Amino acid sequence: MFGMTIIDRARTARDAGRLILSRGPESRSAALRAVRTALEDRSKEIFGANRIDMERSAAEGLAAPMLKRLKFDETKLARVNEGIAALEKSRDPMGKVLERRELDDSLILSRVAGPIGVIGMIFESRPDALVQIATLCLRSGNAVILKGGSEALETNRVLSRIIAEASSDESLPEGGQPRGWIQLAETREDVREMLVLDQFIDLLIPRGSNEFVARIMRDSSIPVLGHADGICHVYLDAAADPAKAIPIVLDSKMQYVAVCNTAETLLVHQDAAKTLLPPIRDALVKAGCELRGDDRTRAIIEVKEALEEDWATEYLDAILSIKVVSSLDEAVNHIHTYGSGHTEAIVTEDERAAEEFLARIDAADVFHNCSTRFADGFVFGLGAEVGISTSKIHARGPVGVEGLLSYKWQLRGSGQIISDYNEGLKTFTHKELD
Amino acid sequence: MFGMTIIDRARTARDAGRLILSRGPESRSAALRAVRTALEDRSKEIFGANRIDMERSAAEGLAAPMLKRLKFDETKLARVNEGIAALEKSRDPMGKVLERRELDDSLILSRVAGPIGVIGMIFESRPDALVQIATLCLRSGNAVILKGGSEALETNRVLSRIIAEASSDESLPEGGQPRGWIQLAETREDVREMLVLDQFIDLLIPRGSNEFVARIMRDSSIPVLGHADGICHVYLDAAADPAKAIPIVLDSKMQYVAVCNTAETLLVHQDAAKTLLPPIRDALVKAGCELRGDDRTRAIIEVKEALEEDWATEYLDAILSIKVVSSLDEAVNHIHTYGSGHTEAIVTEDERAAEEFLARIDAADVFHNCSTRFADGFVFGLGAEVGISTSKIHARGPVGVEGLLSYKWQLRGSGQIISDYNEGLKTFTHKELD
Repeated sequence: MFGMTIIDRARTARDAGRLILSRGPESRSAALRAVRTALEDRSKEIFGANRIDMERSAAEGLAAPMLKRLKFDETKLARVNEGIAALEKSRDPMGKVLERRELDDSLILSRVAGPIGVIGMIFESRPDALVQIATLCLRSGNAVILKGGSEALETNRVLSRIIAEASSDESLPEGGQPRGWIQLAETREDVREMLVLDQFIDLLIPRGSNEFVARIMRDSSIPVLGHADGICHVYLDAAADPAKAIPIVLDSKMQYVAVCNTAETLLVHQDAAKTLLPPIRDALVKAGCELRGDDRTRAIIEVKEALEEDWATEYLDAILSIKVVSSLDEAVNHIHTYGSGHTEAIVTEDERAAEEFLARIDAADVFHNCSTRFADGFVFGLGAEVGISTSKIHARGPVGVEGLLSYKWQLRGSGQIISDYNEGLKTFTHKELD
Repeated sequence: MFGMTIIDRARTARDAGRLILSRGPESRSAALRAVRTALEDRSKEIFGANRIDMERSAAEGLAAPMLKRLKFDETKLARVNEGIAALEKSRDPMGKVLERRELDDSLILSRVAGPIGVIGMIFESRPDALVQIATLCLRSGNAVILKGGSEALETNRVLSRIIAEASSDESLPEGGQPRGWIQLAETREDVREMLVLDQFIDLLIPRGSNEFVARIMRDSSIPVLGHADGICHVYLDAAADPAKAIPIVLDSKMQYVAVCNTAETLLVHQDAAKTLLPPIRDALVKAGCELRGDDRTRAIIEVKEALEEDWATEYLDAILSIKVVSSLDEAVNHIHTYGSGHTEAIVTEDERAAEEFLARIDAADVFHNCSTRFADGFVFGLGAEVGISTSKIHARGPVGVEGLLSYKWQLRGSGQIISDYNEGLKTFTHKELD
């Protein structure tokens, strides 16, 4: 598997992915179970490989937070295996009939869910992401090409080998999954080649820093599921309830500063600013947050000056920029100018203002009276999260396993030809069926 | 409007598109009606501009079939206006709730349909395509940037001006649509710039020759809805009923040879070849079709030799390549090797073979016992057809107005913060709602 060129691997993955279509759901559930057992049985092999990666990376001076992400231990294994167990129990999404229509007597159209084909997953150091995405692909019938960070090379090799072997075990129903459905890419050159393999790879999922994802989006001819920036806003309307506004701002900004659904800018309606800004400043400063405000904010509370670039910055840190606005309209315009289309929240007791905000804001997630931190696939009840998309094509916002699905149209006839309809000998009935 | 750079036009379109979100469905229905009336009232202006295009193009030696496509007369006007009338009556797709889930008490998640944003439409000479796509965008709340063929420049200018003026009429409900939702691009340089404007344009729809579409797909960083090749197959299984097989092959190949859903290759199971090939040859030759076969075919009927390149060619002409295969497996492999993922049909009375074919073939449309020519948005009952996609992302196969739609997640709370859930003070209920 490791001597093959990236094109060969992509072709092998595509062909194996097509074979998955001919195997039943029991085969995929059994393969998931086999993978989970194999990861447990062969945990020493995994931890050993991970130790090599950890030692080499530490010697090369990898920063402590990155080392922590690189580590694959009992805790991480237990967590990924919990995820696999949940996938085993989840419904096999393949073959689900999405719509059915009678076109004419004995001419029945069905739209049926199926896998996308080949997923290209490019991720930075966390090896647990490899297991998570590989098993999501297995559940949804997709083949996958995985490119992890070079720091995790040994761990990724062992993990992908265990998953490949366990899922293709011939003692499983129908002989398990076709060999080759999971492929590893290893070098930067491999990635460069992957980005233009649009005839073999159907969707790219990059996970990593904003710059990393933005570069993949820019350089690839393959559709990308993901997001670069997460510049999210909380807008406190004139009719905001302080008892809701203060905890929501605190939670949106400070509950976990390093993630994409954290608020970076607070917008406050001028009629509420005098009441709300002082207690919000107190709460945030007490929580360790640095504040930067525009002139109208600084006329009410003492904070640093916010510069133009602050409105366009995803701090990913305990910093919040604050702007006083004259109207909901100004808030909407500010969000459309500087926001990244990720998650935007309004706090208000005025239902009309709330509904106008929810309707007008052009973003994946629009929230009323709750924290931006709810923007998450698990929270939304989607099960495992494939990613959060700020694109409006295919999938938007938090994406669960359905983001790995496509569909096809099946038409079952009894000898029909189009010329009979064109010549008026027959007409379409177009009757919706259950 | 015509002095603006393409970036200015794209930005204007995006901002206008966002304004559409704040106007009601009556506004869009009234705008469609106003456009239809204006096209009738100002038909002389349109026909006059079209005459200029026709005369210039004829003088420049444009081929007769292209001139026919360029012509915009009473017949074409009547046809596009029929389309607009149907759109007026169709349901406004915006704001439709696609799913609803209770995350917790008073914390309700809804997934709501909305426009994609800005559609870039790049098409060759037919000016009626401009009206069709612009009004589809109007119905679905999208802004649009249109680039037509230079042969149709005068006609396209007049058509887009009429649509822009009529739809933005201030006497319409809510003042009509925001000015600027429809923009025209005119030069090749404009197109080159459009292809990389991924921050303003969300989806490209190219219509034209295979080479044209393939070039757009290759050169653009924006997702593309469409298809380049249409290499479709009919597979006659061992258990094919001759009474169905012969008309289906004739219809799939000869009913209209110049379109993408026409069959280019016939695959015949070896056990049926001796019975089926002679009458099929007779019927096709009588209809004026040239046949090219592999050795096993030529052992049964007298036809030209098919070369390797025949299997990979979309003739778009009265030519059919024929191959005898030993099994359904060989048919599937041939289709996966040479097909373009568009439309594939099996003719058989063996239900198991049919279901295996429908499940295994990786194509947008998979048909049993009917002609490949049924692959069409109108036939499928989708209403107006935006295009046929061979991508597996976003939309696949014939695409109706829903291909111009995205969605957003609305979350309506009552002050909830994530830390209460993380600390175990509250738990998610995740209850599906109607």
